[in-house]
Formats: sequence, C-alpha cells, structure tokens
Amino acid sequence: MDESPSQVRQRIRAGLYDGQTSGMCHGYAQANLVVLSKEYALDFLIFCQRNPKPCPLLDITEPGDPEPKLIAKGADIRTDIPKYRFYKKGRLVGEKDSIKEEWNENMIGFLLGCSFTFENALMTAGIPVRHIEENHNVPMYITNIKCKSAGIFHGPMVVSMRPIPKDMIIRAVQVTSRFPQVHGAPVCIGDPEAIGINDVARPDFGDPSTIYDGEVPVFWACGVTPQAVAMEAQPEIMLTHAPGNMFISDKKDEDYSVF
Amino acid sequence: MDESPSQVRQRIRAGLYDGQTSGMCHGYAQANLVVLSKEYALDFLIFCQRNPKPCPLLDITEPGDPEPKLIAKGADIRTDIPKYRFYKKGRLVGEKDSIKEEWNENMIGFLLGCSFTFENALMTAGIPVRHIEENHNVPMYITNIKCKSAGIFHGPMVVSMRPIPKDMIIRAVQVTSRFPQVHGAPVCIGDPEAIGINDVARPDFGDPSTIYDGEVPVFWACGVTPQAVAMEAQPEIMLTHAPGNMFISDKKDEDYSVF
Repeated sequence: MDESPSQVRQRIRAGLYDGQTSGMCHGYAQANLVVLSKEYALDFLIFCQRNPKPCPLLDITEPGDPEPKLIAKGADIRTDIPKYRFYKKGRLVGEKDSIKEEWNENMIGFLLGCSFTFENALMTAGIPVRHIEENHNVPMYITNIKCKSAGIFHGPMVVSMRPIPKDMIIRAVQVTSRFPQVHGAPVCIGDPEAIGINDVARPDFGDPSTIYDGEVPVFWACGVTPQAVAMEAQPEIMLTHAPGNMFISDKKDEDYSVF
Repeated sequence: MDESPSQVRQRIRAGLYDGQTSGMCHGYAQANLVVLSKEYALDFLIFCQRNPKPCPLLDITEPGDPEPKLIAKGADIRTDIPKYRFYKKGRLVGEKDSIKEEWNENMIGFLLGCSFTFENALMTAGIPVRHIEENHNVPMYITNIKCKSAGIFHGPMVVSMRPIPKDMIIRAVQVTSRFPQVHGAPVCIGDPEAIGINDVARPDFGDPSTIYDGEVPVFWACGVTPQAVAMEAQPEIMLTHAPGNMFISDKKDEDYSVF
C-alpha cells in the first residue's frame, strides 16, 4: 500500500511530486545532497571524515555518474529530489526541480545522513520531537565549536535543538547513540552558552521550538554544517537539495544503527 | 611511569626502538598506515568510505604534510613507526625504518583503525583473545565477501578470526559493537564456509589459532583489507607500516567507543 522509495523517486523524476519529503516512505533513510566538482572532492571528503558527527557520509557518487549505488541502485541524484538549489561562488542563484542541465562529467554527489533517521528512533522510543509536533522546521544554531578544517573547507559546527523532558534525556542519549552514522549522540545537553548559543529562542536557521517547564534543550550536530562550510569556501558551482526536499534512499533507518 | 605515546614515538624516531608495537602504551589506539600519491587519494578515500568495517579511517594527512593532526599532533608518519614497507606497482621492494627519502609533496597518509583497540575491550570484558594467549599473529582469511569498489580499488574483504567460548559470543558482539570505528561487530559467527573459508586451520595470512571444544570461530573485518586492495591496484608507489609495527596515536581506545 505504501509507496516504495523507488516508486516515490520515479514520481518525483516524472515531475509528479514537488512537495517536501518529510514523513514520506516511513522507515527509510533520507539524505542531504551536496554536489561539487571533482577538484574540490578530496578536500571535502577529508573534511567529512574529520567531522563525522555533523557530516555523516552515506554515499559518494563516481565522477560524472549520478547513480548513488550504495544507497539507491537505479536512482539519479539529478532528478530524484523534488527541489534543488544552485550556488555560484557560494551565492544562491536559483532553485530548480532538476539539475540535469547543470550536471557535468566532473561532478560528484555527496549524500549525507539526515536527522529524520534518529528522530524516527526518538519517536519510536516515546520521546517527543517538538518541531514535528509543532509542524515547523527544526531550530538550528551556529556554535563556537570549530570543525576540523581540510583544505579550503573550514567553519563552525551547526547544531539542531530538540527540547527533551528531563526524565527522558538519558534515553534520548542512548537511542541516538545507536546511530553514529546519522549524527549520533548529542553534542550538548542543557548548556547552550557553553557552545556559544546566547538565545535558544532565536535560532540562526529554521524556527524556534517551544520549551516547556521540565524540559531541557538538547543539541545534536546538524547536517547543515557541511553545506554551510561548502558555501563559505565559495566553489565555482555547488548544487544541493532545497531545505526539506531530501533524497529518499532504499536503506532503512535501522540499517544505520550499530545494533 | 608508563611512557606516553609521544615519548614512544620520539624514541622510535630517534632510532632507539625497532620492535613491534603490540602491547605498548596500553589504552592508546594504534593505527595501520597506507601512504599513496594524491592522484589515488580520492578513489581510495571513497573506497574506505564505502567499506567502513574493513577500512575504518582514523585520520588522513594533508598532501605533503606528514603530521596526522587529528590523532597525534606533532607526530611524523615518515619516522614514528618502527618499520615500513615500500611497494612499487604492488610489489614489495623493501623494508625501511624511515620513509623520509621516499616521501614527496604529493603524498597522503591514511591511518586506519587496528584490531588492538577492540581486543583490549574484549580482554577487559574477560573474553579470551587466543592469538595473544598463544603469542602469535592473528589468523586472517580472504573471504568471498566482495568489497564495494571505487575507481581502481576493488577486491575481497579480509577477515581476522578469534575463537570465542559459546557462552561469551553475545558479550563479544556487544563489546565490539561499541567500536564501529575500529571494525565494530563481527561479520560472521561460526560459519566459515558461508564466507568462503574452507579450512580455519589454514589462514591466508598470520598464524592458525587453537580452537578448543566449546568454542566457535568468530570473524571480524580486518584492516589488512585496504592494504591488500591497494596492492592489487598496483599504484606506482605505496608505503605502509610493516606487519605488527603500528603507529601509536594519542587517542585512547575509549575515544572510539560510541558510548
């Protein structure tokens, strides 16, 4: 009854769906996309390797080949995402529903783990995910935590925040620790100043989440980090998914748990 | 009282120690080394990313820079390992106690996690590690498990084997699962034929381990895999550590546990 990831990707490819992907193909891992020219690939890959919490690589395509063979055989990263963003020298120049025109034989796609995976695990464990309850974007903050640089790529870690009831914090740490390949355990519990966040009510990206009495803001490394860092490096051309418009893979969320 | 990793590295660099590194600096992670020219680096890095169990990357050096900044600030991968191996087009041409002469500005060092880390964890948990008890090399086998290829790099997974008492197998899985960055959970329990091993008494590398009654052979992905695969690809020049002569990092084994 539910559509499979490959059926949804076909529908997106055919131009029959152009909404956000949140909630689609429940149980399957969705991924962030960053496309860079081969000349930047080694440094970017080293950057991801040095900063695995914010930059969890799920797949890398061969130069010029748009098929992410590891996570979705037969898929095409140029057409199978509802909406893309196109950057020149780090400046957003447009949104597109395909990047076939912009694609060339030197391009490499980096598919990075997305917090949807561990949020599903949190909800399965009965832990509330506020921005989903409130139906808005997750609040994200630029921190004072420096990523380890690699070549031209450097910058601060971006984190996302979820308010967690005090008596569920330990469980939230356990549950997300099972998924080291999709951001893993939190980077900070309840001490935003310690990581350079002055006001949790004013996120740098996304929307603020209500924090109820008895809840503590808990921060996880965020997949916006590699995109922000790549933007800062001002590569000639960079293509990415548009926020909330993710690549739906054939991998199950549970495929990324260590046990 | 115990020497620190940096003190041991200094001593090795000064030519004052040329033995194996097994058992040195207890609690600190040791690493395999593969040095390749920059032209092979992207493909090799993608290979490691696609095969994280046999190829757990702990650090990558910048082209021409011999300092592994992530795991050992101030160290020099050209001099701080007791013995190196030098390969031309995949053929072993010599062993050296320094690779300063062979090093050039295009070279990149890949430091890969080593099973010493999870073996310490097994022993701490009271699980016997036979080849350490018997004081010989771990038995290693070429399997029928295909690694996912990347560019010129492809080949079968090599595994190492440890006989585990039946009532400790679950604990052995749990303990090693904590270390996904250093091979992690086993790939096979007690069914060597299933992964193409016909005779556990005749390993492809290393020495056979005694399997006592009530014990089951358990197989883990092995760090020899990337070296074997790189050798197969016959790069112009490849430099590695000599077997058992590892790079001793400043990272604790526990730094690589997910919790």
